[in-house]
Amino acid sequence: GVKKHILVISGDGIGPEVTTWGKAVLEKIGADFGHEFTFDEALMGHAGIEATGEPLPDETLAKAKASDAILFGAIGHIKYDNDPSAKVRPEQGLLKIRKELGLYANLRPIMLFDELLDASSLKPEILKGTDILFFRELTGDVYFGEKKRSEDGNTASDLMIYHRYEVERIATKAFEAARVRGKRLCSVDKANVLESSRLWREVVQELAKQYPDVETEHMFIDNAAMQLVKNPKKFDVVLTANLFGDILTDEASQIAGSMGMLASASIGDGTGFFEPIHGSAHDIAGQDKANPLASILSVALMLEISFGLKDEAKKITDAIDKTLKDGYRTGDIADAHTDKSKILGTKAMGQKVLEYL
Amino acid sequence: GVKKHILVISGDGIGPEVTTWGKAVLEKIGADFGHEFTFDEALMGHAGIEATGEPLPDETLAKAKASDAILFGAIGHIKYDNDPSAKVRPEQGLLKIRKELGLYANLRPIMLFDELLDASSLKPEILKGTDILFFRELTGDVYFGEKKRSEDGNTASDLMIYHRYEVERIATKAFEAARVRGKRLCSVDKANVLESSRLWREVVQELAKQYPDVETEHMFIDNAAMQLVKNPKKFDVVLTANLFGDILTDEASQIAGSMGMLASASIGDGTGFFEPIHGSAHDIAGQDKANPLASILSVALMLEISFGLKDEAKKITDAIDKTLKDGYRTGDIADAHTDKSKILGTKAMGQKVLEYL
Ligand SMILES: CC(C)[C@H](C(=O)O)[C@@H](O)C(=O)O
Ligand SMILES: CC(C)[C@H](C(=O)O)[C@@H](O)C(=O)O
Repeated sequence: GVKKHILVISGDGIGPEVTTWGKAVLEKIGADFGHEFTFDEALMGHAGIEATGEPLPDETLAKAKASDAILFGAIGHIKYDNDPSAKVRPEQGLLKIRKELGLYANLRPIMLFDELLDASSLKPEILKGTDILFFRELTGDVYFGEKKRSEDGNTASDLMIYHRYEVERIATKAFEAARVRGKRLCSVDKANVLESSRLWREVVQELAKQYPDVETEHMFIDNAAMQLVKNPKKFDVVLTANLFGDILTDEASQIAGSMGMLASASIGDGTGFFEPIHGSAHDIAGQDKANPLASILSVALMLEISFGLKDEAKKITDAIDKTLKDGYRTGDIADAHTDKSKILGTKAMGQKVLEYL
Repeated sequence: GVKKHILVISGDGIGPEVTTWGKAVLEKIGADFGHEFTFDEALMGHAGIEATGEPLPDETLAKAKASDAILFGAIGHIKYDNDPSAKVRPEQGLLKIRKELGLYANLRPIMLFDELLDASSLKPEILKGTDILFFRELTGDVYFGEKKRSEDGNTASDLMIYHRYEVERIATKAFEAARVRGKRLCSVDKANVLESSRLWREVVQELAKQYPDVETEHMFIDNAAMQLVKNPKKFDVVLTANLFGDILTDEASQIAGSMGMLASASIGDGTGFFEPIHGSAHDIAGQDKANPLASILSVALMLEISFGLKDEAKKITDAIDKTLKDGYRTGDIADAHTDKSKILGTKAMGQKVLEYL
């Protein structure tokens, strides 16, 4: 068995509710497979601000750096969303930890559980067979470029900026992944308008020469946003910048039936960071309604990517598969055909997956 | 009858093929209703570069300023798309004419013809009843902010920038439209990360106070990209920045069944500019495959918005409605149930609409 120390940052909104189940699954897997998983907890986001005034308290960052992997919940609070002048914001915590840990590659697999084909707003025949792995750049772009506000407050700007090495390192990871998947890579940019996209395209074109076995395509973001709905099957690996990736992966969540089903892995120079792609969903927080499956799937990604424990990861996705096959659903993935008695709350769903494990 | 002078810029790729039919419909409407429409033609994009070296020749701009409305086709050429280092690009022509004519508001109605409910990749029950009017800001944002490339070529940037007055004028147009439509306005931004979005949100929040009869909502772009697929019916007027609007409206085209069905109006300080939202589609150019309906719908928008001729506009949408009801389709909007003998090429479809007029 392996010995790993995991930091749990449950964050805001539904974060704590769903992360509980991710952690419980890790504990069960540890016990069953004889691994020694130890845990610690830390604050971030609104929770961090409330406790310390900081969206990313120093203590959290120190613990993060010292851990082997991080399981994260969600971030954000409506209070700040409607106050454009707030100086301190929960999201700053997430952006800062991404930057500090060098988490430049955000992997978002669009996993399609057959049982959920009907939960999507897309037609089943359009969806069936879809299997996409997004590589979203995570520590550059307009997210981290200089932000300015003029003194009179009337002009505001953000710098969309990329350096060659930033594009190279994420593109390399994407090409490597494409090589062992469907051997197709689609790089998404807006090179017909943006200089940063032209650099992006240049770098990807150069790298492509080293991967003659991978079929490389370039697509404009507007077209990609359309094609993703029109014909999601055509995509294998999608490589894109931070902002475009933010938009496309949320859009793609409808392919999986619900955001509540999608996990993501942020990796780079050191400790890996695993989180659901859904947000804090304050409207349902504390009501035992959130879908814990994305947090549990985040744990599967952690086991596979950070610890190299493929069998353990497979065990988890199999358990989820079975749970769904037996008809159990949280509200977000239920449809008209769902047996009402099998619509479960967060806790009952977490419990079900544990049973099937 | 009115007297109007219309400049036709058919542009690149399928532009000329489809614009022919937009123009033919204008001529027919002019004759039938006793209006005097006169026409001129001019070059832009790749066509402009080939002829004069300039994507927007001076002559074109002069003619544009002197006209009462402009009917545009499409822009772009694959040759430049794959050459990130090209200094002169077709798209510069389109961006420049938008700026020079002060076309700051791009209106993109998502029209849903009942007959095409099945042509979409979304389920009919999700689509039915959808009616969205996008207001995309068109002369600001990262499209027009300063672009830089470092001397060694390794760093590239684009400035995402907004001024208060730019947000105010487009938001005002959107609120006015919401007031006479469904009275709901959704402003889309990324205010949890971007300073320019925080200015955007501030301005929209302030303006909202003057429109107490309009229900105003703010949504992050990632969430909007998702909601648009999940539940398009929830939107009425959507107000957003240039880049976000580019992405969302292309995505939304799947709601209408095809990009080949969507028209747009760009308006502002002077002459209005009307174009299909589809691009140059070089892969099908010259093959009599393109759908001319978006160009014809652009003409309907021109009649209504620039000339105030509502009855004439209605006549056109009615004719298209009938054409579709009788089962005629171009390839892009045909589905498994389409009678094969009713799948028409560009010319035959244009001709059909003229007949039904
Ligand atoms: C919360 C927010 C800052 C974040 C982002 O935009 O990156 C989120 O939307 C995500 O995708 O992880
Ligand atoms: C051709 C391109 C520059 C243009 C844009 O991005 O604005 C197009 O996609 C559009 O939406 O009109």
